[in-house]
Amino acid sequence: MHVQHLDPEKFVQAYNVDLQSLYPWEGVVEPPFGAAWAILSAGESTKVHQHQEGETFFIVRGAGTMTVDGESTPVRPGSVIFQRPFHQHVLTNTSDTEDLMFLALWWEDKKLWARDATTQKTTAAPSTTAVQRVMVTAAPPTPNGDLHVGHLSGPYLAADVYTRYLRLRGVEGYYACGSDDHCMYVERMGEKLGMSGPEAADHFVAEIEQTLKAAGISMHLFLRPDASPRFEPLVLAMFNRLWHDGKLESRDGPSPYCEICQRYLFEADICGHCPHCGDGVTGNTCETCGGVNDCLDIVDARCSACDTPPATRTFRRLFFPLSRYADALTKFHRGATMSARLRSFCERQIAAGLPDVAISHISDWGIRVPFTMENAEGSDESESPFSNQTLYVWFEMAARYLAYAGHLNDIANTEGDGAHDEEESYRSFWSSDEARIVQFFGFDNSFYYALMLPALYLAFDETLRLPAAFVVNEFYRLDGDKFSTSRGHSIPGRELLAAAPRDMVRFYLAYSGPEREQSNFTRAEFEDTVERELVRGFKPWLIELAQKVATEFAGVVPATGDWTDEHLHFYRQLEMMTAEAAEAYEPETFSLQRLSRVLIELVRTARRFGKSEMHWRDIEERQQERRTGVALELLAARVLAVLAAPVMPDFAGRLWRDLGYQEPLSDGAWELSPSWIPAGQHIGDLGAHDFPNIPAFNANKCLTQEPVPA
Amino acid sequence: MHVQHLDPEKFVQAYNVDLQSLYPWEGVVEPPFGAAWAILSAGESTKVHQHQEGETFFIVRGAGTMTVDGESTPVRPGSVIFQRPFHQHVLTNTSDTEDLMFLALWWEDKKLWARDATTQKTTAAPSTTAVQRVMVTAAPPTPNGDLHVGHLSGPYLAADVYTRYLRLRGVEGYYACGSDDHCMYVERMGEKLGMSGPEAADHFVAEIEQTLKAAGISMHLFLRPDASPRFEPLVLAMFNRLWHDGKLESRDGPSPYCEICQRYLFEADICGHCPHCGDGVTGNTCETCGGVNDCLDIVDARCSACDTPPATRTFRRLFFPLSRYADALTKFHRGATMSARLRSFCERQIAAGLPDVAISHISDWGIRVPFTMENAEGSDESESPFSNQTLYVWFEMAARYLAYAGHLNDIANTEGDGAHDEEESYRSFWSSDEARIVQFFGFDNSFYYALMLPALYLAFDETLRLPAAFVVNEFYRLDGDKFSTSRGHSIPGRELLAAAPRDMVRFYLAYSGPEREQSNFTRAEFEDTVERELVRGFKPWLIELAQKVATEFAGVVPATGDWTDEHLHFYRQLEMMTAEAAEAYEPETFSLQRLSRVLIELVRTARRFGKSEMHWRDIEERQQERRTGVALELLAARVLAVLAAPVMPDFAGRLWRDLGYQEPLSDGAWELSPSWIPAGQHIGDLGAHDFPNIPAFNANKCLTQEPVPA
Repeated sequence: MHVQHLDPEKFVQAYNVDLQSLYPWEGVVEPPFGAAWAILSAGESTKVHQHQEGETFFIVRGAGTMTVDGESTPVRPGSVIFQRPFHQHVLTNTSDTEDLMFLALWWEDKKLWARDATTQKTTAAPSTTAVQRVMVTAAPPTPNGDLHVGHLSGPYLAADVYTRYLRLRGVEGYYACGSDDHCMYVERMGEKLGMSGPEAADHFVAEIEQTLKAAGISMHLFLRPDASPRFEPLVLAMFNRLWHDGKLESRDGPSPYCEICQRYLFEADICGHCPHCGDGVTGNTCETCGGVNDCLDIVDARCSACDTPPATRTFRRLFFPLSRYADALTKFHRGATMSARLRSFCERQIAAGLPDVAISHISDWGIRVPFTMENAEGSDESESPFSNQTLYVWFEMAARYLAYAGHLNDIANTEGDGAHDEEESYRSFWSSDEARIVQFFGFDNSFYYALMLPALYLAFDETLRLPAAFVVNEFYRLDGDKFSTSRGHSIPGRELLAAAPRDMVRFYLAYSGPEREQSNFTRAEFEDTVERELVRGFKPWLIELAQKVATEFAGVVPATGDWTDEHLHFYRQLEMMTAEAAEAYEPETFSLQRLSRVLIELVRTARRFGKSEMHWRDIEERQQERRTGVALELLAARVLAVLAAPVMPDFAGRLWRDLGYQEPLSDGAWELSPSWIPAGQHIGDLGAHDFPNIPAFNANKCLTQEPVPA
Repeated sequence: MHVQHLDPEKFVQAYNVDLQSLYPWEGVVEPPFGAAWAILSAGESTKVHQHQEGETFFIVRGAGTMTVDGESTPVRPGSVIFQRPFHQHVLTNTSDTEDLMFLALWWEDKKLWARDATTQKTTAAPSTTAVQRVMVTAAPPTPNGDLHVGHLSGPYLAADVYTRYLRLRGVEGYYACGSDDHCMYVERMGEKLGMSGPEAADHFVAEIEQTLKAAGISMHLFLRPDASPRFEPLVLAMFNRLWHDGKLESRDGPSPYCEICQRYLFEADICGHCPHCGDGVTGNTCETCGGVNDCLDIVDARCSACDTPPATRTFRRLFFPLSRYADALTKFHRGATMSARLRSFCERQIAAGLPDVAISHISDWGIRVPFTMENAEGSDESESPFSNQTLYVWFEMAARYLAYAGHLNDIANTEGDGAHDEEESYRSFWSSDEARIVQFFGFDNSFYYALMLPALYLAFDETLRLPAAFVVNEFYRLDGDKFSTSRGHSIPGRELLAAAPRDMVRFYLAYSGPEREQSNFTRAEFEDTVERELVRGFKPWLIELAQKVATEFAGVVPATGDWTDEHLHFYRQLEMMTAEAAEAYEPETFSLQRLSRVLIELVRTARRFGKSEMHWRDIEERQQERRTGVALELLAARVLAVLAAPVMPDFAGRLWRDLGYQEPLSDGAWELSPSWIPAGQHIGDLGAHDFPNIPAFNANKCLTQEPVPA
């Protein structure tokens, strides 16, 4: 006989219950389900989870509450609860004394799964095209240098592409960015170049703006902190409210201090090795692992200016106690879109215990800690212990995004009353049910964007809507080594953009960019890829298509006629590729690498289709099918223009115009099932002006940097 | 939420217990089992019974004794008893006062009971996977030289790949081919080399067979015309029936004749320019446009041997009047699968009027026109006007495929009676409702495969099933110019296959092969592509995956745990790519170019997924998700093995084995929704033995041909 008994020796702990596995029963039977006895201790809950199997709990003993997707019901012996796959469920033992025992039974049913997955996931998503308005942000560049190709490949291009995509989907996407002028690196670079901090900021912001423009990165707002009427008032308002509400702490704290340079060291002024990963690091944040340091915990710390190990001095400063928000952040993260990399980073940080973050430094650079009666210990400003301190740039950053929202509200409502106060202004943009915030940044900023800023918002005003999605990138490398302007191992963005049309550059950055892992730029691969895919792929297909239309249809779009199986199949492929492209543009599954490959495959498929359809040309009785074939190939070009527009706006705009449209490609042009180009519309020189040959480009000697040996 | 509670109002009496039925749960779910609460009153026993289902009792409350097949054991809450099907079982409540409550769960598992071998058939509909058996053919190579890379890229590889795909789908695919020994080119090449025709044929067939073997092109039948006991009898039987039924015509006809060489010119012996397209041509067929000529209509015709323009002489010969079958062919074409190129070719030929095709030539080479009383004009063979004539090889070709079917019938029915006559034998293979014929050939053979052979079958026996699908290829070029062994502008297949692993060669031929248009082989692109996609793509992903499993899971497949949205999305992508690959393998949409790109994208996507999932590794609370992620990445490797197997059988076989399977990848292994690799299975050195680096390959100097200027 085959019999097992309940046996505590066989219990294993999982999902916060004691489990005794029953099925599959080794050596006896492998039924189409798994089963286990489960015992949940008094007062405990099972771990919140979801999985691919359908599952049933048969309650045997005790009493509890079952919660599935937020809905709760009491359960008792004899209760049977079925959970569909992928629904979150929690069982709580409501007794203080007695165990709750149940039989858990699960099975995999792909039919069930398919049905559920589609209803549950795809109708809800994509979140950002279901709303009217999205504020898209990219982490503000530091104006201590121009942008190199590594910078461009990161948040700047991605946010631009995503905003253009939103517009094509009929969503009001606003791309807001700015310059991080109050960062210490700016003042230090100024000193090096014999400029004041503000002069250095102006100088490099001008360069950065030129580079962004050269790359076709088009922002609705580029905020300079000292030029914005909204920025500093919001920083101060936020500070004052937090201070007033007891959300900040004031206490003495130690800090590295350089006896030689006679200054307190933080950010640019201190360097050493990261206490978390051991890599080279400067003050406050590690570029490699994203971990934060308080400058004191830097290993082998030295003053950046004189290379001397610092002493420690103590002064009274302000802290933001981040750990108070751990639970709220966990809840926020559960509903926010982010990569596994970022999610796991956040969970590790929270599990390790969130630090108190110093938000004031002894410094002249940036916004002074405001004088309030509460933070004065004497009666006038000069007696405040904070009178020689400025606010940390990452504290500013929270208010910066509220300022963005206020400015965008002005832009979005040019006909509005304009009479809002600050708060009304940003709230009406930021917190509308019809609006979302999607933020792009490099992984090294994760601590601030995913933990500190949301916590500051929660502290400041818990009714503020937090960002819906974070899209992070990794580092781009050059010839296998880190980009480094100081070592000359870099390609300035403007040099590359002077050497090749910006759409080629954007295409290649999309094709090769560092999304989920570091990736590498080499000049040879750049040239090979654009040559193979664009010069010898996109261009000849379009040129041949235009010739076909010119020769056979006097240069106008034919009306469709009869359809063959191949025609229908090709139309379905266009729909399918449109869906794939949309997926690649959505934050949940954002991947410009994937997108670039969808475009390549679209062109390859259309070219192949065109070659195959050509053979109807000379058959009198098949002219109906010939028309359909050519109309479909032109439709593929139209689909290409739309799907490629976010990444290659110049190319897409030209193609759209050459397809005979009078009006430029407009907001909302994205279609799930593409519409025909109107029959009779005149076709121009498709492809003729796109993608110059690589030889011509090679002749240009702009890419002068040689790789530095690693 | 889906919840039921124990409810006496829902009890029914059965087997002497009160039963509350739980599963199937109407309107909610139909799991692969049934379940009920059961209450057995104090002192009672369940009715003795047996049934076909496996059954389990989970004891929840009370105490009792379980008896199975005469063996008894006490049971208490927490006891679990499994009963095999058809075993007698009785449960007795041993208490005088208390009910005994249990959960009864039963399921039908055919493995557990009858040996009822209901063969599972694949559910998907594509024509060739819906039948039991497919004869796959590739046009027989002419043994006047070894196969070069251009040949391999065409029907030989494609038919091999397709046959392997069929087997994976659970269809009995048989790949049949042979050598075209009776073609005039063979005798002429023999003369050049000082061999007899049969010697030349033997010599080159041996080379061809070695090359096919080196390429991993595996045929179930390779027919030599003079060695097959079925071939010549079927040719003669077909001739005799057609002659007897008046389907052939005998009349005087003009032919080119070389006064210097003193022979009638056709096939290899005459050259000039194609009357249809103007390109260079030899007798009877144009390689460029596929059009046929009767040798007289060749423009600027010359004798191939002496380069003299031929005279015209008339002789009595036999013709097959193809035009009689125009309507029947049109009807056949409508239901057959073929590309637009081939379909349009057929329609043009039919519209222009089909010719009478001469099926006998004055020649010693091939099968003699048989002597029958009807074709004798005197009374013995020597007086027949056809006594110095042989049958045209393209007439032979029709009977050749019937002979294939006969031979395959022998192979498929090794345990059969073997006593069939010729006709029964090929018909039982060829004309079964459960069988289909799919033919692969170069476009230059279109006239014969799509028009002449089907017409001969219609003339011979109109109940014969005609081919279901034709898959044609275009020419492969080398460095932009036609392959030409005689000009030395060629790469012998065996040289390339000696220089690189055959899976690399097969992959690149799939990636770049001439499907819908001519395509180009260059050594540089071959090396670049396999380096980029295989050496730097497939291989490192697999190696890293194996390392991950070794380090984190002691080298065994983890069981799945919790699922994130990314997990579900990735599983969906695997299903989607499987569907795309199937489409690329099916004759209607056959495209190895597409297939190779699906494989590349599968690896790219899996690599990206793996990089992203890595971040759960170090988080204690996320080990459930970590397991799911690694199990999914391993699943992607399993999917890759299956999808790639037709193109890269060595790689796929190794990968399958390294994924821990004891049995090799078997027929029928293709799954629409991939199944998990069993948890606990041991993983080997994934990727370690695949795809050597290109530098090692470069060192090999086999590819010696330099491009000839065009």
